[in-house]
Amino acid sequence: MTRVSSPLGDMDPEEFRRHAHRVADWIADYLANPSKFPVLARVQPGEISAALPATTPVRGEPFETIFSDFERILVPGITHWNHPGFFAYFAITGSAPGVLAEFLSAALNVQAMLWRTSPAATELEEVTLSWLRQLLGLPSTFEGVIYDTASISTLHALAAARERTVPSVRELGLAGRDPMPRLRVYCSDQTHSSIDKAVILLGLGQQSVRKIPSDSEYRMRADALAHAVADDRAHGWQPLAVVATVGTTSSTSVDPVPAIADLCGRESIWLHVDAAYAGVAAMVPGREGILQGAELADSLVVNPHKWLFTPFDLSVLYCRHMDLIRSAFALTPEYLKTIEAAPVRNLMDTGIQLGRRFRALKLWMVLRHFGAEGLRDRLAEHMRLAQLFASWVDESPDFERLAPVPFSVVCFRARAQQSEDADRLNERILEAVNGTGEIFISHTRLDGRYALRLAIGNLHTTESHVMRAWGLIQEHAHQLRSSN
Amino acid sequence: MTRVSSPLGDMDPEEFRRHAHRVADWIADYLANPSKFPVLARVQPGEISAALPATTPVRGEPFETIFSDFERILVPGITHWNHPGFFAYFAITGSAPGVLAEFLSAALNVQAMLWRTSPAATELEEVTLSWLRQLLGLPSTFEGVIYDTASISTLHALAAARERTVPSVRELGLAGRDPMPRLRVYCSDQTHSSIDKAVILLGLGQQSVRKIPSDSEYRMRADALAHAVADDRAHGWQPLAVVATVGTTSSTSVDPVPAIADLCGRESIWLHVDAAYAGVAAMVPGREGILQGAELADSLVVNPHKWLFTPFDLSVLYCRHMDLIRSAFALTPEYLKTIEAAPVRNLMDTGIQLGRRFRALKLWMVLRHFGAEGLRDRLAEHMRLAQLFASWVDESPDFERLAPVPFSVVCFRARAQQSEDADRLNERILEAVNGTGEIFISHTRLDGRYALRLAIGNLHTTESHVMRAWGLIQEHAHQLRSSN
Repeated sequence: MTRVSSPLGDMDPEEFRRHAHRVADWIADYLANPSKFPVLARVQPGEISAALPATTPVRGEPFETIFSDFERILVPGITHWNHPGFFAYFAITGSAPGVLAEFLSAALNVQAMLWRTSPAATELEEVTLSWLRQLLGLPSTFEGVIYDTASISTLHALAAARERTVPSVRELGLAGRDPMPRLRVYCSDQTHSSIDKAVILLGLGQQSVRKIPSDSEYRMRADALAHAVADDRAHGWQPLAVVATVGTTSSTSVDPVPAIADLCGRESIWLHVDAAYAGVAAMVPGREGILQGAELADSLVVNPHKWLFTPFDLSVLYCRHMDLIRSAFALTPEYLKTIEAAPVRNLMDTGIQLGRRFRALKLWMVLRHFGAEGLRDRLAEHMRLAQLFASWVDESPDFERLAPVPFSVVCFRARAQQSEDADRLNERILEAVNGTGEIFISHTRLDGRYALRLAIGNLHTTESHVMRAWGLIQEHAHQLRSSN
Repeated sequence: MTRVSSPLGDMDPEEFRRHAHRVADWIADYLANPSKFPVLARVQPGEISAALPATTPVRGEPFETIFSDFERILVPGITHWNHPGFFAYFAITGSAPGVLAEFLSAALNVQAMLWRTSPAATELEEVTLSWLRQLLGLPSTFEGVIYDTASISTLHALAAARERTVPSVRELGLAGRDPMPRLRVYCSDQTHSSIDKAVILLGLGQQSVRKIPSDSEYRMRADALAHAVADDRAHGWQPLAVVATVGTTSSTSVDPVPAIADLCGRESIWLHVDAAYAGVAAMVPGREGILQGAELADSLVVNPHKWLFTPFDLSVLYCRHMDLIRSAFALTPEYLKTIEAAPVRNLMDTGIQLGRRFRALKLWMVLRHFGAEGLRDRLAEHMRLAQLFASWVDESPDFERLAPVPFSVVCFRARAQQSEDADRLNERILEAVNGTGEIFISHTRLDGRYALRLAIGNLHTTESHVMRAWGLIQEHAHQLRSSN
């Protein structure tokens, strides 16, 4: 029996069907050719806001009107992360199977706080994270949990470290306790800003972050770390955690995890590995070594939404002591108590967020659609394209490479002529190539030098797009030099 | 020009189109009749896991196979939040326009950390939250931001309160400082567990939470709050924040916000209002009063994913001092620095999470599709249905109501006969009616008494479903009494 649509219900089911097909076609057309739009949105600040009414319409509007405004007003304000010329930050892909999974997940609208409120979401998360763990070569001592972002994954890792290090922190907190040593979190000077944000939130204060110098290839110096720990201990600081990065955000450098793990083991310090971007590369034959030592870590974050073709957001925390996260946060009010036939995992116990979307579905569909071989081939291809681009940079007298290319990101810049300011020249190149609408690259600073940063990670990107990017960059560099 | 699909690219666009239409039809059929499935999943713990392979397939699989496994293995493990008989926890609806918006959002896959990475997502968030703010009758002094869950919204509110109260907490943290008073967060004994979790995370310790007794209708006693604050001050505690709730999770009671706001004003204590579930009811004519006093609050959370027909997840924090959140968390590494033609809002500055999905799209489509009147009518209808159910309870000699019904949730229970244990009887009723597959209700405990809890909030629920729920509950209560 088909439900008769009530005037106070949801959209009529047949109307929904019609619009869903319309949207499906729009998306199919869009994904067939995302480069029909400029990659970087060309709107001015405030332009989108100004084009929208100031209040909710009093009466409901036809979906056709809403969708037409989406196309007319919003699409021009989209920076197209699907565009094959998207080379900024970390290029990502919300691949087709993942998009379909998100459509289903939104329709099912399950809230997976308890096993009971969605057994499938809870158990699929466990199974899928076991699949991914095996692909990464991590031992089964790691239990996984899905969060929204690496910021939240790392926050939980550091909360677990705090739980282990500070007696009764759940009950007593950090303030007004005596004696309470000052706590320290170590990471390199290349580490992601989420570490600082987590430390601030946890009430440790930014002074708790001790940034360890990196070497000439932007890798944390293990000797400097050992020295810092000893120095801190001598001055009354209590080491809380070390965050090592496999694939830093700036240059994608890899910290020496085995040496760091060794030190953390000796010193009984929590080791968290931030492999949010590059961790997935460990599944590529010959690249398993990038996670060497990580098997000794206490926790590790990897983001399938970054370089594993899963629509944003889906971050995975693997932890060898998930019970510590549970003892930090599990808290079941009466209205959430359930009795099941056997022990179950309630996802709300592993973290700060009570509500959980059915995120495992998209990862499951992505892993099955591409298969292990398909994923490896694509990751390897992105690394090949990055090496190719790096070789062009290396062969050009007009450009220089500023960092090794262990994965799919190239940091480089145009060489300046005698009198030029190289930073300014490269800023202008960035601005000019991003203005073409054909490519979008971002920048960083390495050893104080402004660097252009080309990141490959989009499934729509082929060798011809990388060639075009190189052509555009050379062309604009040449023009800007000539006009100087 | 259509992109030619590469063997190392994403799914072929025409293949995607075909599957997208297939999925659209499945969802249309599903939403037309969600009651074809039992509302509460009937699987046993571990059953879903056991039905799935232990590893990622080596080679990619056809989408048909994956989708068929979704239907065969996963759907039976879904608890159907769309089912018109879903009356547990807070019943929610991911309405049709919201589902279509999520499909688009997944396809666009924008990461709205910076204005530049998606101007449309950034500006639409601002506009849509202004629409919602006006619907709620809140003044424009409130700035809004979208987070995933109320847990995260409240966490940021309390982080802002900490930022305001503890000098240099961002830099120095809470530990090892002298002198540092112990800090206190006040809420009622009915407050949601997310307050405790946030306080733990922030390093304040659960001892910081002082639970204020509530009155006979489960509302925080303002006199008891005043007494607690005075008592704490006299004993060296520093008040940090008060959390008042409009619509508690257990009985949906409403704390006396005007009196609490008055006290917070006098005492200079941060007032956070948790209106996650019930805040939206303020848009219903005659119900504006529920947010009276909230205009004086420092922050307020409301969740469109709860009772505003928006697919999970979308929580909104309104704050009168968003700059405090920015000063707590804004932190821009070089690789995220951008130069724009005018000042812009970068969403990554308002919180712990760097990455942000394009969540505003679904709220915008929902608000436009239903319109202000359509939303008001639906909320009013849910409250009418709850009153109706409550009247049946009140009229029955076999049942008793355990709390007032200010919104769309009814707490009640079957009266026990002389020798019976009323708690046990009602537990068995819960189990029995949930076993029918026709309805799913949850429970709570009020004044120590086990209470059945019927929540209305699903757009598919009509008066006939509520009648059927009442019929089933009566029937099973009768059977269980007879068999006693």
